Amino acid sequence: MLIPRYLARPLFQWPCYGRSSRYMSQLSHDKVRIVEVGPRDGLQNEPKLLPAAIKIELIDRLSETGLQTIEATSFVSAKWVPQMGDNSEVLRGIRRAPGISYPVLTPNLKGFESALEAGAEEVAVFGAASDAFSLKNVNCTAAAAIERFKPVLEAAKEHGIRVRGYVSTVVGCPYEGAVPPQAVVKVVTALHEMGCYEISLGDTIGVGTPGSMRKMLDEVTRAVPAQQLAVHCHDTYGQALSNILTSLEYGIRVVDASVSGLGGCPYARGASGNAATEDVVYMLHGMGINTGVNLDKLIEVGRYICTELGRSSESKVNRAWKGPQGKKL
Amino acid sequence: MLIPRYLARPLFQWPCYGRSSRYMSQLSHDKVRIVEVGPRDGLQNEPKLLPAAIKIELIDRLSETGLQTIEATSFVSAKWVPQMGDNSEVLRGIRRAPGISYPVLTPNLKGFESALEAGAEEVAVFGAASDAFSLKNVNCTAAAAIERFKPVLEAAKEHGIRVRGYVSTVVGCPYEGAVPPQAVVKVVTALHEMGCYEISLGDTIGVGTPGSMRKMLDEVTRAVPAQQLAVHCHDTYGQALSNILTSLEYGIRVVDASVSGLGGCPYARGASGNAATEDVVYMLHGMGINTGVNLDKLIEVGRYICTELGRSSESKVNRAWKGPQGKKL
Repeated sequence: MLIPRYLARPLFQWPCYGRSSRYMSQLSHDKVRIVEVGPRDGLQNEPKLLPAAIKIELIDRLSETGLQTIEATSFVSAKWVPQMGDNSEVLRGIRRAPGISYPVLTPNLKGFESALEAGAEEVAVFGAASDAFSLKNVNCTAAAAIERFKPVLEAAKEHGIRVRGYVSTVVGCPYEGAVPPQAVVKVVTALHEMGCYEISLGDTIGVGTPGSMRKMLDEVTRAVPAQQLAVHCHDTYGQALSNILTSLEYGIRVVDASVSGLGGCPYARGASGNAATEDVVYMLHGMGINTGVNLDKLIEVGRYICTELGRSSESKVNRAWKGPQGKKL
Repeated sequence: MLIPRYLARPLFQWPCYGRSSRYMSQLSHDKVRIVEVGPRDGLQNEPKLLPAAIKIELIDRLSETGLQTIEATSFVSAKWVPQMGDNSEVLRGIRRAPGISYPVLTPNLKGFESALEAGAEEVAVFGAASDAFSLKNVNCTAAAAIERFKPVLEAAKEHGIRVRGYVSTVVGCPYEGAVPPQAVVKVVTALHEMGCYEISLGDTIGVGTPGSMRKMLDEVTRAVPAQQLAVHCHDTYGQALSNILTSLEYGIRVVDASVSGLGGCPYARGASGNAATEDVVYMLHGMGINTGVNLDKLIEVGRYICTELGRSSESKVNRAWKGPQGKKL
């Protein structure tokens, strides 16, 4: 059942609220749920392969930060994504905290069945808005790729498993350039109608700006309620936080982020790092928006995993954090 | 003469404009002036001392990018700021392009006189919103520090020189934490009444978020018209672009930025890098806002100066830039 159109409109249009007291009190009752994608989307794109025990430790530590959704791993072929070859071991090994969901990526029925066997209670499927991107990656158009998920959605329904949908290249594609908003609408609508409870809009190559995000969200929030959308912004061009801020105006209240920006290499040209969870949480808390996340604990987790990976954190908040004193500001 | 209060209100409250066509056409007629602070605020905070010839080359190259304001140097004591010891040589050495202003920092009358002698046509004075910060730096309160600028403002008036005002620590101070908006109002109003044609609001330690920026701008834009304000956001906590985006809602149309984020060290904890000009321009152009800056040329200048400094660019756009193909997105 579709939620009425008026609910799809931006829930708060903040500059319209006038001066700060009303604005801030409005926002302080507002909540954003962070979907932590570091253990999957992050580690999948890190050059260093970590043992399953470290991944489990990472997820267990993230479970103690107040995050409600932690994407745990991906049930893809280890031939294609060797970083996720230990998916069953990881999913079986984590301590599942009550109230936290641990979705896993399942691109096909085989992946779904393996995930189910390993105890998955939520899965995710992955489509693209750009035909060129889809053809290059899975050798069929965006629409045809979505059709392939049908068996996964059907099996999930049968087993009472929730399915999250991802749409990549929602504003730009490395092969075709700017992606028309209507192409995004088509794929988002298809995933919505197939039964995905939430659809995450991914600026996969991080080229979006508040301008292109608005053009896209103008159309997409007309087709599917903002309450069933999330954003997944990469920071390749430094625009992730601005784009997330823009999505809030449209009533979107679910934001994907990766602890310490895992998945992006700071010095490889064109590397597409995820928005760093610490930076997103810092911004939201500064706006009086509740995420439920304890930033001090999250920063510790970021430092832990960066030490394990032998890299520096891509989170500016993490690099600048000085402890309790900093929190006052 | 004060501009009427209603003009101080945000010029565009973008989410209120409704759907994208009107929004984008509104923005496409909009302009933002970038104040490039790399040669002064940037180089002043770089550990490596550059010869005057390189600084002159940097400014001359910046003059070819379409920038209208380039802060050239600072007339402070070389004892305190050795990086700016060559101020006269730099200001005399640059090729002044028509239509471009090259302000220089002048903290006192002595500095002003030296600047005038070297041919300055615009100067800038520097106050702080936080008493603790002011006491620590210049051993007097914020209000008393402003008083000291009076002779500079008077001499400038006499010589027909425009004066820009800076206010630092507008949302947070390293010594007293959160800075109350009324403290900012006091200093901004004082500089405005003393005759500064424009006052730049500096989040010196980069702790601001769209939340604290709004609280501050709510008050400051009531006291001084947005048309006479600029923002100067540091990216220490990754919030610079979001904070700039927030200031646009208030009608602010002048943004300070530093090419390739000069002045911030990526790995020193708590380092306060300036917003990178490339990233600011990318965002604004993506929103259909005209800056007059040629991003390709600016990126080349960023790469030039980073090579000279032996450092990597702090601009994500610069690091990701692939040339013409990237521009399409």
